[in-house]
Amino acid sequence: MDIEEFRKRGYEAIDRICKYYKELDSVKVLPEVKPGYLKKLLPKHAPEEAEPWEDIQADFESTILPGVTHWQSPNFFAFYPANSSFPAIIADMFSDMINCVGFNWICSPACTELETIVLDWVNRLIGLDDGYLSDGEGGGVIQGTASEAVLVVMLAARQRVIDEYKKRGYTEEGIATKLIAYGSDQAHSSIEKASMIVNCKFKAIPSDDKFCLRGSSVRSVMEKDIEEGLIPFFITATIGTTSSAAIDYIDEIACTLEGTSVWLHIDAAYAGAALVCPEYQYLLKGVDRSQSFNFNMHKWLLTNFDCSCLWVRKRSHLLNALSLTPAFLRNIASDSGLVIDYRDWQIPLGRRFRSLKIWFVLRAFGANGLREHIRKSIKLAQRFEEELSKYPNYFAITTKPAFSLVCFHLKVQKNTNMASNELTTALYNSINNSRELYVTQTKLGSQNVIRFVVGSPWTTEQHVVDGVRKIVNFTEAIIEDAELTIE
Amino acid sequence: MDIEEFRKRGYEAIDRICKYYKELDSVKVLPEVKPGYLKKLLPKHAPEEAEPWEDIQADFESTILPGVTHWQSPNFFAFYPANSSFPAIIADMFSDMINCVGFNWICSPACTELETIVLDWVNRLIGLDDGYLSDGEGGGVIQGTASEAVLVVMLAARQRVIDEYKKRGYTEEGIATKLIAYGSDQAHSSIEKASMIVNCKFKAIPSDDKFCLRGSSVRSVMEKDIEEGLIPFFITATIGTTSSAAIDYIDEIACTLEGTSVWLHIDAAYAGAALVCPEYQYLLKGVDRSQSFNFNMHKWLLTNFDCSCLWVRKRSHLLNALSLTPAFLRNIASDSGLVIDYRDWQIPLGRRFRSLKIWFVLRAFGANGLREHIRKSIKLAQRFEEELSKYPNYFAITTKPAFSLVCFHLKVQKNTNMASNELTTALYNSINNSRELYVTQTKLGSQNVIRFVVGSPWTTEQHVVDGVRKIVNFTEAIIEDAELTIE
Repeated sequence: MDIEEFRKRGYEAIDRICKYYKELDSVKVLPEVKPGYLKKLLPKHAPEEAEPWEDIQADFESTILPGVTHWQSPNFFAFYPANSSFPAIIADMFSDMINCVGFNWICSPACTELETIVLDWVNRLIGLDDGYLSDGEGGGVIQGTASEAVLVVMLAARQRVIDEYKKRGYTEEGIATKLIAYGSDQAHSSIEKASMIVNCKFKAIPSDDKFCLRGSSVRSVMEKDIEEGLIPFFITATIGTTSSAAIDYIDEIACTLEGTSVWLHIDAAYAGAALVCPEYQYLLKGVDRSQSFNFNMHKWLLTNFDCSCLWVRKRSHLLNALSLTPAFLRNIASDSGLVIDYRDWQIPLGRRFRSLKIWFVLRAFGANGLREHIRKSIKLAQRFEEELSKYPNYFAITTKPAFSLVCFHLKVQKNTNMASNELTTALYNSINNSRELYVTQTKLGSQNVIRFVVGSPWTTEQHVVDGVRKIVNFTEAIIEDAELTIE
Repeated sequence: MDIEEFRKRGYEAIDRICKYYKELDSVKVLPEVKPGYLKKLLPKHAPEEAEPWEDIQADFESTILPGVTHWQSPNFFAFYPANSSFPAIIADMFSDMINCVGFNWICSPACTELETIVLDWVNRLIGLDDGYLSDGEGGGVIQGTASEAVLVVMLAARQRVIDEYKKRGYTEEGIATKLIAYGSDQAHSSIEKASMIVNCKFKAIPSDDKFCLRGSSVRSVMEKDIEEGLIPFFITATIGTTSSAAIDYIDEIACTLEGTSVWLHIDAAYAGAALVCPEYQYLLKGVDRSQSFNFNMHKWLLTNFDCSCLWVRKRSHLLNALSLTPAFLRNIASDSGLVIDYRDWQIPLGRRFRSLKIWFVLRAFGANGLREHIRKSIKLAQRFEEELSKYPNYFAITTKPAFSLVCFHLKVQKNTNMASNELTTALYNSINNSRELYVTQTKLGSQNVIRFVVGSPWTTEQHVVDGVRKIVNFTEAIIEDAELTIE
């Protein structure tokens, strides 16, 4: 494909993207395919000779698109959102045009410097404290995902505690086997996965009856573990848990940790986006005593995946854990110490030019545009609850709208012998099997619940109202079936 | 930005990309900027209100592009290449259009299934054995980078050895502190970094005088370590080392490892691309006894960054080390065991639709198109050596063309008192300071050498010949200066 053919095919691709978003509303959010569908449609080998672009494009239409789950659909209410936006798509096109691998400054100065600058912008926008800005000892970095973010800070925390204990005369082996990391029982699975990777112990501390982690629970678990000879070194507190968007008592936890060498990491993967609205920034109370803070712009802030923003209070902690400088990476700029080499802030060496999309998104929407998007989603979640509450015989709201998430479950229905959990799971399956709405199921305590999250910029009030209508219909069908069974 | 504005701005972006590649040859490969240049040009805060697209685009031109290192430039001879291609760029546009987060099958069936299929395609294309195909116990997965690839297989190897020793009655703590991983002294720094992350020991085994790792060296180091109570569990053998593209004796190493429980990982990050040419597939001798194999399509195979292909012989080993299934990720398809959930094959949870670009590239170029690209680069590297050899008084070829890499250094020049290393470093600095060519310096043994790698599809014979001419000019200037100093 030469430059002129790329121009033609590129225009066609732009048109295809326009068509995709125009038709998004009329396409079912979940595909109809069964596992293994694609293998039957594609050949077993790559072609020997180049194929005409028309064939590739046609196969994309006929084999790939029918197997896609439409995360941008206005009827996508599952997991948490993963917003795309047109400014971010264009930024990614430019990133692909340049296709630099910016592992150190000289590999593309603009790539490194823009990242530092826009992460300072986002810091100020969401009301993080100045200790996380790049002009002090801290700074921000783009990670692929929150999982990678928590892994790198856990590594930094491990190195910090090992260095500290070594100074006190302990051996590295003696420390390594005693390290323990914590999260609440609502913390994201990535915390436990990171513990598996760094090979330390992990304990899920029970949350309270609202699924929030309290300082007192942290204290009692930690004290017991210390008595047993363990070394607590890391804890994640969450703003907006995965299951119910609960908010841990960060201020309490920070107080509990005072005087210890436990690293406090804040996981605001989803809800961090809401901090662009000043009315949510009170949630940051206590965050000024955390060592790291992470949220995913690629979730609910109109920035295409992947773009997970991580700030650390002391960048030297990351470098101590992750820096290695072999000869082939030595260069004058890096040796001078004047520049940031982000390769030492992450697991991979190579990295894409992702700051471009943050820059484009912040400028194309402006802070107010982003706030409008967040507030609209939150309002629609409240509207969802309002609609659902019109059927108090069917539905119980498990957790009130938290940001843009509502959790609900089905009440036990007389004339059926199905338990609430069974009914809820049946409804969950009915909804997703229809392919018209996509929701996720989770467990809160012993209760099966359905999570309904608003987030797509294409979702309107009508989608929410229609969604509730469908949910009511599915519910009635389930109850009817269950009644028939009992008769 | 609504759909129609996106169409307009998207067309403009396509035109901008065309212009970029048209002008690529006339732009200096390295930018002129100094550290901190961008901070002076950009405001301190994100804008409150949305800004016009024209302003964003204009700032991209005036502030970002002047600070970019042009990895696609025909004069980029540094590191290893990171090819972009038009089919890959369009595939990425579609990936961004869909913007699914394919961590499990149901999150986008096409995303998972296409990945399995195209990694089988690539397996067959590069001549890997069938044990790495997905229809047996193995299979392929796209990782971001070779660093992530080696980390996940090291984790799998660690879990495997721990499970094995536990069965023999050892405690997990007892094993963990004794584990040791190996690479040659030429292995990529990511191996040592992975060892730091998983918290095991690492030893660099001396390579031979051609910078290749021999089976006998592995045996003697391992035997000594076992005597001292250590547990060898992982070794990386490299096809195409970073410094000189040397090739370890994989067959010898595989023989040495027979009967042990040491995981043999093959790192072919750069040179793996050459295996699309049957004449290089003899290099795979012994690879049929490896547990994992990795190469980066994003380096030299016309696929935009990132796209690192990893195959494992037993996918269960990855799952044992990395799988966790919390309630919110449970679903019928995954529970049935019929589908692959790639989240359990990697560190992050979320993942992009990267298989699209492999599919587009394989089809748009065809196997023969890819072979042509590889053979052209290799021929140009040979041409480089040929040209450079016309100046035997100045240059010594440290390592003959290996794939598309030539390493060379400056000979000691009479009438100067500069050592060869000093002269070579001076030349390296002259070349890069000119911004007209970009090369990397490394150390082979005690010798400073300059690495000259051909790889951009835009590089022609003329660029190589001109490159040598410039290198000769810089060399003569350095010698002249040195002679003046001595007088």
